[in-house]
Amino acid sequence: MRKRIITISREFGSGGRYIGEKLAQQLGVAYYDKEIIARVAEETGFSKEFVEKKGEYSPQKSLFAYAFVGRDSQGMSIEDHLYAAQAKIILDLVKKGPCVIVGRSADYILRDRTDCLHVFIHSSPEKKAERIRTLYGKTEEESIKLMKETDKKRSINYNYYTDQKWGAVRNYDVTLNSGTIGIDKCVEILVEMAKG
Amino acid sequence: MRKRIITISREFGSGGRYIGEKLAQQLGVAYYDKEIIARVAEETGFSKEFVEKKGEYSPQKSLFAYAFVGRDSQGMSIEDHLYAAQAKIILDLVKKGPCVIVGRSADYILRDRTDCLHVFIHSSPEKKAERIRTLYGKTEEESIKLMKETDKKRSINYNYYTDQKWGAVRNYDVTLNSGTIGIDKCVEILVEMAKG
Repeated sequence: MRKRIITISREFGSGGRYIGEKLAQQLGVAYYDKEIIARVAEETGFSKEFVEKKGEYSPQKSLFAYAFVGRDSQGMSIEDHLYAAQAKIILDLVKKGPCVIVGRSADYILRDRTDCLHVFIHSSPEKKAERIRTLYGKTEEESIKLMKETDKKRSINYNYYTDQKWGAVRNYDVTLNSGTIGIDKCVEILVEMAKG
Repeated sequence: MRKRIITISREFGSGGRYIGEKLAQQLGVAYYDKEIIARVAEETGFSKEFVEKKGEYSPQKSLFAYAFVGRDSQGMSIEDHLYAAQAKIILDLVKKGPCVIVGRSADYILRDRTDCLHVFIHSSPEKKAERIRTLYGKTEEESIKLMKETDKKRSINYNYYTDQKWGAVRNYDVTLNSGTIGIDKCVEILVEMAKG
């Protein structure tokens, strides 16, 4: 396998995490998502819930506000510490062998390696809302709100730490619309691409 | 073949047109690029050179200026007439059977069909400049200038007529970085995707 490491960024409700799981299974490689959260919790002493809530999501409603959250004596906020811990753990995990990593700005953290395939999964608002409704038992209104808020927080976090724009074509080797292509076909295509 | 029509949008120097040609060959379907120019020239009476120069490229340096180019008594500019003629020809061509269409906002013109695969091919500025240098015998400086100007004009034209942003993830079913994936692998992946 030429592409040993696959990072998957995804819009909420696009099925990106599911695609990542299936892809790791089919390639027979490690899959990291909750694993990263557990390790960050262990290393930093924060609870898993806290890491999950803050590790990938901005608590603020704007990038401007995000830049000014409380700082310690080294000028670092809790979010900065979590980002640094996550980056270190991702760099450690990829040393262990081929894997699929979902979220957590892994595409940026591993941007200088040539053995990675950076993937972005997106879909139309209608298809995503439908998936959220079905999977999480939400109403249509709740689904749309959750989708918007989650992606907004993800993009603020990503844009702040990477100086890149979340979901911009040039950050990724491949982007796929899971709504028009189909989730199983996305997995099939990515298996082919991982082979190099 | 479930995806009967494949539209390819591409950054200048990314090899998108070459990928389109190879893809059409491998799928055994029609390939339209210069063909569209010839038909527009025939229908409108403009020369092929004129259609090629104006049909996909804004003559202006900004979207603002583009909106105010000379208009006829119906309020239409020459560019508006060319766009309308191109759209009509693309809609006619796809009635003939499966095909690959490169450029000319075909993704937008055919956006409501479900039998299309909309593709965007991009690459890093370094890789594109290298390809332009090799293919067109330009210096590095000339290559970078040509690349920037061509894509700027393409994006202004596209953004003006489609109300979408050229190269934005959500316009396309799939985007591929030909520089990291490799041109032949892009063709292979797209052949797989066209099968549905």
